[in-house]
Amino acid sequence: MRQVNLALLGAGTVGGGVIQALHRHGPRLAARLGVRFHVAHVAVRDATRARDFALPPGAVVTTDWRAAALAPEVDLVVELMGGTTTAREAAAAVLAAGRPLVTANKALLSAHGAALFALAARHGANLYYEASVAGGIPIIKVLRESLVGNRVTRLFGILNGTCNYILTRMAREGADLAAVLADAQRLGYAEADPTLDLGGFDAQHKAGILASLAHGFWVDAADIHVEGITGITPPDMKFAAQLGYAIKLLGVVKTLEGASARGRMRKAVNGGRITVSVQPTLIPAGHVLASVNDVYNAVFVRGDIVGDTLYYGRGAGRDATASAVLSDLADAALDLKCGVRNRLPAFVAHDRDGAVAPIAEVRSSFYLRLDVVDRPGVLARIAAILARSRIGISSVFQPEGHEGAHVPLILMLHDAPRAAMLRALAQIRRLPSVGGQPALFPVETFG
Amino acid sequence: MRQVNLALLGAGTVGGGVIQALHRHGPRLAARLGVRFHVAHVAVRDATRARDFALPPGAVVTTDWRAAALAPEVDLVVELMGGTTTAREAAAAVLAAGRPLVTANKALLSAHGAALFALAARHGANLYYEASVAGGIPIIKVLRESLVGNRVTRLFGILNGTCNYILTRMAREGADLAAVLADAQRLGYAEADPTLDLGGFDAQHKAGILASLAHGFWVDAADIHVEGITGITPPDMKFAAQLGYAIKLLGVVKTLEGASARGRMRKAVNGGRITVSVQPTLIPAGHVLASVNDVYNAVFVRGDIVGDTLYYGRGAGRDATASAVLSDLADAALDLKCGVRNRLPAFVAHDRDGAVAPIAEVRSSFYLRLDVVDRPGVLARIAAILARSRIGISSVFQPEGHEGAHVPLILMLHDAPRAAMLRALAQIRRLPSVGGQPALFPVETFG
Repeated sequence: MRQVNLALLGAGTVGGGVIQALHRHGPRLAARLGVRFHVAHVAVRDATRARDFALPPGAVVTTDWRAAALAPEVDLVVELMGGTTTAREAAAAVLAAGRPLVTANKALLSAHGAALFALAARHGANLYYEASVAGGIPIIKVLRESLVGNRVTRLFGILNGTCNYILTRMAREGADLAAVLADAQRLGYAEADPTLDLGGFDAQHKAGILASLAHGFWVDAADIHVEGITGITPPDMKFAAQLGYAIKLLGVVKTLEGASARGRMRKAVNGGRITVSVQPTLIPAGHVLASVNDVYNAVFVRGDIVGDTLYYGRGAGRDATASAVLSDLADAALDLKCGVRNRLPAFVAHDRDGAVAPIAEVRSSFYLRLDVVDRPGVLARIAAILARSRIGISSVFQPEGHEGAHVPLILMLHDAPRAAMLRALAQIRRLPSVGGQPALFPVETFG
Repeated sequence: MRQVNLALLGAGTVGGGVIQALHRHGPRLAARLGVRFHVAHVAVRDATRARDFALPPGAVVTTDWRAAALAPEVDLVVELMGGTTTAREAAAAVLAAGRPLVTANKALLSAHGAALFALAARHGANLYYEASVAGGIPIIKVLRESLVGNRVTRLFGILNGTCNYILTRMAREGADLAAVLADAQRLGYAEADPTLDLGGFDAQHKAGILASLAHGFWVDAADIHVEGITGITPPDMKFAAQLGYAIKLLGVVKTLEGASARGRMRKAVNGGRITVSVQPTLIPAGHVLASVNDVYNAVFVRGDIVGDTLYYGRGAGRDATASAVLSDLADAALDLKCGVRNRLPAFVAHDRDGAVAPIAEVRSSFYLRLDVVDRPGVLARIAAILARSRIGISSVFQPEGHEGAHVPLILMLHDAPRAAMLRALAQIRRLPSVGGQPALFPVETFG
């Protein structure tokens, strides 16, 4: 049986999961693939550090990633260092040497994906990255292979487990964000500095990679509109539930009607314009995405042929990520066994005329929570502004208060372009009875 | 660009979907795959029949499937005839000729899968069958590729869209099965003879294929315990909902602790024993599977590394099935382009010592609905039988009736082996106050 020699760069959380899974399921993988994996080299930052798993017996342990990655007997390199500095250097060196590379590094792909894909193509090396987005959910394979015969018209993702955990507990317990966050940090579900998660930036990286794969052109993170979850309050959760909705941090990729200017000029088949955003979003409580709770992630994909599909699982953590890495190891091993280098290239730019349109053009319904002084005439003035902006009100919800007190005022607003909505909101905020920080969340009806 | 010449055997519902999808997305597929599909031959039963789609221009249309499948210029054959007679003959002829075959035919694989896989291996041909189970849900690829590094410990599938549609409407409307079935037949969601669907036999075929792929030995349909949905009544739906459950027709594949006798003897790594069943099952209303409604299917898979995952989509219908066929066409085309014949063989028997255990050994909680005469002492006698059988009662639910009338009595019963439960039920049914047909459904808590 052919042996595939691995160099693992990094033996932290995910590396440990991969080492443990290879140890546990080595014979199973060999029986299924006809290939035996051997961890030949492990590059670590500190070889003397105590670990909660055993490094593979027979592996050369080194602090020199380059020596591990480029050792002559190595067939396949697995980058699990994380970060975008050394990881980038290592990925580039491996691909430039024509060696296949598996990576679980979302930040690396988000920042340098286009360059790494080009490098891989130039040197006939392949790059596998199932574990980079949504951990144990095989969304990369689904978009690249299973849905290859579809135009993806809608993609909605719950892509950050930390945010979903916090929102789930806020919804269940009526707790406020700071309290749940502190708990999540104690439990290891949130980082000491939670900005990357709570600010929506982690989901932004993932949404960008998924949009790129679905639409066949590289989407820069900078073109993705991002709002995090820190503006969501317990009253928002309560009012949303009363209105029949859940609030989720949703990565959204939508096709817009009409081709891009370049697409039109070149009369391309594709040339589609898309919008990509990450925002707290109200979704109907009965929708399957609303039942995605706790640290789970899910990606809902609508294809023009297949219709609606959904993929659900743990989006992070040692084992879920290790499972995805093993699936890439298997793909890479089969390619090595068959002697094919680019059966499925790392990235196929199948729509060179695609473009990301500004979020301002997106139409949606909205949930708007304002902080108003409870006195006669306030609603009339707000309604007048909305009417002038041609934004219809579908319902108004004002909890009982006493005159003169600050109370929340909830408005559910009909379908309007985001730009018009923001202009109206700016006018509303100038009203003297309106104070505080409003919450404006799109309402997604999956129509 | 390389051209892949197709022979389509069958141009009915699914064939039409494939032809339309290839027409619509031919350029997209070519851009993504670097391969151009050309429908060179279409074999039909009646070439003069009016169709709601255009046969591909330039294709040779014939009633001779053999001439189409074995024409010298054909690279890849797509079997969309359905059935198990001509389809079997055609599949065998194609594989024996060393040609790759794509099939959407679940009944064919269920009945003759093992023989066809052996034939494919013998002649170095490959067999692709993503569309054979759960339509647009890429569950075949998920089990074979994405979860390859896992031992699948649990698999739960909502695998029949007709049943799920009927159960969804019964739950929503309180309607009875016959009325909803008549409606489903009018809408084309149910066949004139609904036995295959409502009896659970369609789900049985699918559960068998999924169990085989997950566990690496061929599971015969005959070893799968099957109960259909015709015993479910509106009161069952209502009581289940009041108790916090939904009722779904669930295909269930579970590993049992302890290896099979052969597995033990040979000290195999695998050698696992599994149970495979299709039954109406109560699941917690908050579980993600409970939100799978209407004609949608879903497969929930627990892997020992990845944890819980779920895959959701339309399980049948022209377009969802066509999408899965296109994904197989893409895989087959990439293999042809790279000149590899069995990169991923059609079926890998990775656990030669696995075995299916009798359902009687499975432990679960149960929902039991009895039809009893409302008189003092009935519950005491039933409770005494259960106590002697060491089956605990977790709750009893008896709607108000008047003494002497027949009323339903609902019992939620603690974890017990199915065999013990059936023995107790047989004794209960001999009580003079117990009449009618009881309903006994397992309760799945996903623990």
